[in-house]
Amino acid sequence: MQLGMVGLGRMGGNIVRRLLRAGHDCVAFDRDPAPGAALAQEGARAVDSLEAMVAALAAPRTIWIMLPNGAPTEAAIDSLAALLSPGDVLIDGGNSMWKDSVRRGTALRAKGLHFLDIGTSGGVWGLERGYSMMIGGEDEIVRRLDPILAALAPGKAAAPPTPGYAGDPRPEQGYVHAGPNGAGHFTKMIHNGIEYGMMQAFAEGLDILHHADSAALPEDQRFTLNLAEITEAWRRGSVVASWLLDLTAQALAGDPALEGFSGHVSDSGEGRWTVQAAVETAVAAPVLSAALYARFTSRDEDRFSGKVLSAQRKGFGGHLESPKK
Amino acid sequence: MQLGMVGLGRMGGNIVRRLLRAGHDCVAFDRDPAPGAALAQEGARAVDSLEAMVAALAAPRTIWIMLPNGAPTEAAIDSLAALLSPGDVLIDGGNSMWKDSVRRGTALRAKGLHFLDIGTSGGVWGLERGYSMMIGGEDEIVRRLDPILAALAPGKAAAPPTPGYAGDPRPEQGYVHAGPNGAGHFTKMIHNGIEYGMMQAFAEGLDILHHADSAALPEDQRFTLNLAEITEAWRRGSVVASWLLDLTAQALAGDPALEGFSGHVSDSGEGRWTVQAAVETAVAAPVLSAALYARFTSRDEDRFSGKVLSAQRKGFGGHLESPKK
Amino acid sequence: MQLGMVGLGRMGGNIVRRLLRAGHDCVAFDRDPAPGAALAQEGARAVDSLEAMVAALAAPRTIWIMLPNGAPTEAAIDSLAALLSPGDVLIDGGNSMWKDSVRRGTALRAKGLHFLDIGTSGGVWGLERGYSMMIGGEDEIVRRLDPILAALAPGKAAAPPTPGYAGDPRPEQGYVHAGPNGAGHFTKMIHNGIEYGMMQAFAEGLDILHHADSAALPEDQRFTLNLAEITEAWRRGSVVASWLLDLTAQALAGDPALEGFSGHVSDSGEGRWTVQAAVETAVAAPVLSAALYARFTSRDEDRFSGKVLSAQRKGFGGHLESPKK
Amino acid sequence: MQLGMVGLGRMGGNIVRRLLRAGHDCVAFDRDPAPGAALAQEGARAVDSLEAMVAALAAPRTIWIMLPNGAPTEAAIDSLAALLSPGDVLIDGGNSMWKDSVRRGTALRAKGLHFLDIGTSGGVWGLERGYSMMIGGEDEIVRRLDPILAALAPGKAAAPPTPGYAGDPRPEQGYVHAGPNGAGHFTKMIHNGIEYGMMQAFAEGLDILHHADSAALPEDQRFTLNLAEITEAWRRGSVVASWLLDLTAQALAGDPALEGFSGHVSDSGEGRWTVQAAVETAVAAPVLSAALYARFTSRDEDRFSGKVLSAQRKGFGGHLESPKK
Repeated sequence: MQLGMVGLGRMGGNIVRRLLRAGHDCVAFDRDPAPGAALAQEGARAVDSLEAMVAALAAPRTIWIMLPNGAPTEAAIDSLAALLSPGDVLIDGGNSMWKDSVRRGTALRAKGLHFLDIGTSGGVWGLERGYSMMIGGEDEIVRRLDPILAALAPGKAAAPPTPGYAGDPRPEQGYVHAGPNGAGHFTKMIHNGIEYGMMQAFAEGLDILHHADSAALPEDQRFTLNLAEITEAWRRGSVVASWLLDLTAQALAGDPALEGFSGHVSDSGEGRWTVQAAVETAVAAPVLSAALYARFTSRDEDRFSGKVLSAQRKGFGGHLESPKK
Repeated sequence: MQLGMVGLGRMGGNIVRRLLRAGHDCVAFDRDPAPGAALAQEGARAVDSLEAMVAALAAPRTIWIMLPNGAPTEAAIDSLAALLSPGDVLIDGGNSMWKDSVRRGTALRAKGLHFLDIGTSGGVWGLERGYSMMIGGEDEIVRRLDPILAALAPGKAAAPPTPGYAGDPRPEQGYVHAGPNGAGHFTKMIHNGIEYGMMQAFAEGLDILHHADSAALPEDQRFTLNLAEITEAWRRGSVVASWLLDLTAQALAGDPALEGFSGHVSDSGEGRWTVQAAVETAVAAPVLSAALYARFTSRDEDRFSGKVLSAQRKGFGGHLESPKK
Repeated sequence: MQLGMVGLGRMGGNIVRRLLRAGHDCVAFDRDPAPGAALAQEGARAVDSLEAMVAALAAPRTIWIMLPNGAPTEAAIDSLAALLSPGDVLIDGGNSMWKDSVRRGTALRAKGLHFLDIGTSGGVWGLERGYSMMIGGEDEIVRRLDPILAALAPGKAAAPPTPGYAGDPRPEQGYVHAGPNGAGHFTKMIHNGIEYGMMQAFAEGLDILHHADSAALPEDQRFTLNLAEITEAWRRGSVVASWLLDLTAQALAGDPALEGFSGHVSDSGEGRWTVQAAVETAVAAPVLSAALYARFTSRDEDRFSGKVLSAQRKGFGGHLESPKK
Repeated sequence: MQLGMVGLGRMGGNIVRRLLRAGHDCVAFDRDPAPGAALAQEGARAVDSLEAMVAALAAPRTIWIMLPNGAPTEAAIDSLAALLSPGDVLIDGGNSMWKDSVRRGTALRAKGLHFLDIGTSGGVWGLERGYSMMIGGEDEIVRRLDPILAALAPGKAAAPPTPGYAGDPRPEQGYVHAGPNGAGHFTKMIHNGIEYGMMQAFAEGLDILHHADSAALPEDQRFTLNLAEITEAWRRGSVVASWLLDLTAQALAGDPALEGFSGHVSDSGEGRWTVQAAVETAVAAPVLSAALYARFTSRDEDRFSGKVLSAQRKGFGGHLESPKK
C-alpha cells in the first residue's frame, strides 16, 4: 500500500522503515532534508514539499503526519487540507490533544476528507517491537488502511493469547479501533496517564529501597540494598513484572545509583490532559495526578510553596529555617 | 533436598508441589489434615504435629512456615524454636512485617538456630510460573538452601536477559538474597507497595475510559469505549505492557463491565507498611499512599469525612446535601 | 450610588439588602417576581425585565449580575450588552470561570462597555458579616464604584490590623483589585481551591479522631473522643483556629455524629478549575486535587476503579471479594 | 497553685511566665541555668537539679515536663519517677508520641504516680494569646489542676460562643479533657496533622497565584498578582479566614516574594504520626499525607525517584534529560 509520511523524526522515520520492510510504498517529507535522504537509501521516495508529496501519491491518498502536537501539527493539517482531494485520508499519529482531533475530524469531513487520529506508542523500540496503535475515525477508512496498520503492529505472537478474549481480532495484533475521531487520542492519553502512574509507583518504591540504609531507622533495621539485583529478580514471577520494570532493571544494571541523571523530569501533554479529563468526567485520579505533580516538583527551582510553609512556621512557632543554600 | 512445610494453604501447598515435582523430599503439616492428605498422594509425607515434623526431618533441618502473618506465624516460630536443634533453619515465607523478621532473626540466632525471611510472590500462579523470592538472612544458609530456592524460582528462561546485567546470577533465576534478616520482607513489602501503585494506575485510567461517555462532556466529545479491546491491544508494544495488564485484559474479556465485583477492595499489611516505611525514612510516596487510601475509601461505609464536608458547606453556604440514601 | 441587580437568589438578594442598608439606590430583577417584591418592601425598586432595569437606571449605569455560572450568566451578559450604552458597567459577581471573564471583558470593551469580574465570598453570612471581594477590571472603573464596594465589604474592624502591611488600603476593608479582567475570578477560584483543601484537612483529621476507638488499635490505645468538645477547644489559641473550624464546631455541637448528612459531597466549578490551573501553570497541587477527588469519590456509586482492583486481585492471588452488597 | 517546670525553652519558659502573671507559684529547672535565672527575676524559684525541684515542691507535687520528645522526655520522666512520691503528678506537655503516653501512664500509675499528657499548642504566641491544651489522664487529677489549666488557657473571650454548644465548659476556655492517658497527645497529633494540611492548602493556592504570570498561559490570560494584598483582603469575610492566613498575610506584608526563605521545610513527629494513625485505623488521609510528603520533597537533595523516572523515559523513548545542574 502507499503512504506519505510528514515528519521524519525518531517516530516518523522508523514508521516508514517498518512499512518499507513490510513491502509498502512510502513517500517521505521533512523540513530537514537529511532524514528523507537516509530513508531514500532504504527504499522510500523523498520529496521536498507537501505539494510534491501530494503529487507523488495516487488518489485516494493516505498521508500520516508525525509532528510535535500543537502548532506544527495544526499547520501541516491546514496546508494538506488545502492540497488534498475528496476521499483522501489524513492521519495524525502524533500526541495531539483529543479534543483537537474531534474538531479536526469534523472540519476535514466537511471538506470531503477523511481523518484518523492514531495514538501511537512504541518509542525508540517501535521499529523492532512494533507499534501499539489506538485509532479514532470512520470504520470504513480504518478497515481500508488495515494493511498499513497490520504491518506496523507488533503482531499476535508478541504476547500469549488472553483466555476468553472474543472481541475484534485487531487488538490481538496490537491495535484497536477505539471509536470515532478523538477516541484514538483519548485512549492514547489514558495509556500515557497510566504509564505516568506506573513509573511513579516504581520510582517511589525504589526510592524507599534506596533509603533503606537511612540513619532515621534503628541501627539493626537498616539495609544497603542492591537495586540492580532486586529489580532483576522481580522480572520473573513477580506481580510487578512489566516492560517498564525491564527498562528500569536495564538502567540500574548499567548505572546502579543512576548518577547519569539529575532527577529533573519532563512531562508532556498526555499526563496533563489525563488529569484534566479526570476532572472533567468527575473521576478521582489521585495516583495519576500525584505522578504528574511529582514531575512538576522535580523541576521547581522556585520552591514558592515551601517558602510559604516556612514563613508560616516562623510565624506561629518561631521556627527558623536553615539558611538558604 | 529435604524440607518441612508448615501451613498448606494456597501458597504453602503449591510450594510443596513444585518442590516435589523437582524431586525434593517434603514433609507437610497443617492443622487441617485434608491438604496434607492430598499432598501425600503427590509424594509428600504428611505429619500431624510440629513434633512429628521435627522428628521426621534429618538434622540440620529446614522448616518453611507459610502462615498468615502476626499471631499464627509468631506462634509457629515460638513452638518450633523450642523443638529444633542448633544448626536447624527456620524460614518464614509469609508476609510478615520486616521489623518482626529482624527481631525474630536475632532471637533465633541467640538459640543457635538460623532464620531466613523469604518474601514470596507468585499467588495462584506460582506452581506453574515459579515464585519470585526476596530473601533475608545469613549468606551461608541462603547458599546451602540453593537447590530448594532454584527449584521454586521461575528460572532464567522466564524473561529475556537484561543487557549489561553483571550482578549475582540468582536474580536472573528470579530470586535475590537482599541482605540480612528483615531485608527479604522489606523488599517484598516494597514489591507489594509498587504493585498497589500500579494497580491503582490501571484502575484510575480505566475508570476515566469507562466514563468517556459522561454527560459532563460536550456531546461530540463522548465515546463509548470497549475496555476489553483496548486493554488487549495494549498488551503488545505499549509502554504499559505488564503482567497486571494481562490479568486485567483477561478479567475484562470475561466480564466487560466487571459486574462480578462490588468495588470494595481489601488491603493487606504490606501496602500499609510501605507507607509507614516511607514516613519513617522521609521518602515522599504520594502514589503508594493514594493507592492504599483508595482501598480504605472503597470500604468506608461510614463516610464521616464526607459528612464533615457537607456540614461545613451547609454552615458557610447554606448548601443542602441530597437526602441520605 | 445606584446599582441594578440581576439575580435575586441568596447572594444577589442579600447584596441588595446590604446596599440598601448603606443608603444606596437599588433596582432589582429576577425571573421569579417574589424576591424582587420582597426587596421592594425593603426599599429597592423591583423591575420585571432587563429592558425595564436599563430604563430605570441613569447613565452611566452599573448592573451587577449574580446568576449561576455558565449559560445563565452568558445569556444575561449578552442581553444586557445589547441594551446598554457606551460607558455603562457590567459586573459579574458570580462564580464564572476566569477565562470566560477575560473573554467577556475583551468583547464588552469592544462595544464601549466596561466589565468587572468580582469574585464574591460570603455565602449566607455576607449580609451580616460583609462580602470578601476579588475584583478584575479597569482601575478607573473599580475606583468609580468604590462606594458600592466599600459598603459591601466587611470593613477594617472585621480583623485586627496586619503588622507591617503597607499596601493598598482597600484589602484592609476586605476587597482587593487583583488586576485586569479575569484576575478577580482567578483569585476567587484559588480562594475556593484553598477552601477545599482546608475543609478536607479538617475532614480527614476529624475522621481519624472519630476512628480513635477502632478495633484495629491495641485495646489500651483506643479512645472514644468527643469531637464537639475538641473542636470547641481548638477555637481558642490553637494553630487551626479559623472560620471553618467555628462552623465545624457549631455543626458538631448540634449533631455530634453528623447524622444529618449522608457524606455525598457536591463540588462546584472553582475546585475543578483550580486543579486545571495548577496543571496549566505546572504547579504541584496535591492537596487541592486530593480535596476535589475526595468529593468525586464520595458520590461514586459505580465504583469502577475498585472493581478493577478487585478483578486484578482475583487474577493474581485468587483473592475473593466479599459478595456485592 | 504550685507547679514545677522542667525545660525552660520557648514553650516552657513562657508557660511559667503566664502562670506567674496569674499568681501561681513556680519552681523552674533547665540544664542551662540562664533561662531559670531570667524567670527568677519574674518571680519563679529557679533550682539546679531535679532533686532540688522535688525538694522545693510540697506534696502532692505537680511537675510539668516541657522537653523535646523522645530521649530527653523519657529520661526526665524516668528520673522524676524515681524521686517522686505516691500521689504526685507528672505532666508531659511536649509533643510526645501518644503511644508513649499510654505506656508511660500505665507505668507511672503502677508506682502510685499520676500522669497527664497535655498536648499544648500556642507557639511563640502562647504567653499573650494563651495555650490551647488537649489533655489525657485521670478525671480527678485534671480537675485538681484546673486553676493551672484555666490560667494557661486563652479564656472564653478569645472567641465568640458557638451557638448550641452545650458540652463541658472547659473547651470554651480553650482546653479539653480528651480522655485517658494518650488521648491528649493523640488529639494534639491530629491538631498538627490538620495544621499541616491547612498550611499546604495555602501554600499550593498561593503558589498558583504566584505563577499566574506563567508564560505557559495564553498572553491575555496572565496576571501579576499582589499576594500581600490578596491575603490581606481574604482576612475579612472570606471562607479561608484563619489564624494561619493572618500569619501568612503578615509574612507577605514584610517580604512579598518570601525571599527570606529557601523553601526547605522541616517536619516534626506529629505530621508523621498522623499518617501512621490514619494507616493504622484505615482512614483515608490523602491531604494530610500529601502535606507531609511536600515537606519531605522540599528537602530531597538526592532526587532518586526523579532519576528513576528519567532513566525510564530514556529507556522507552530515548528522551534525554537536561544536563545535571
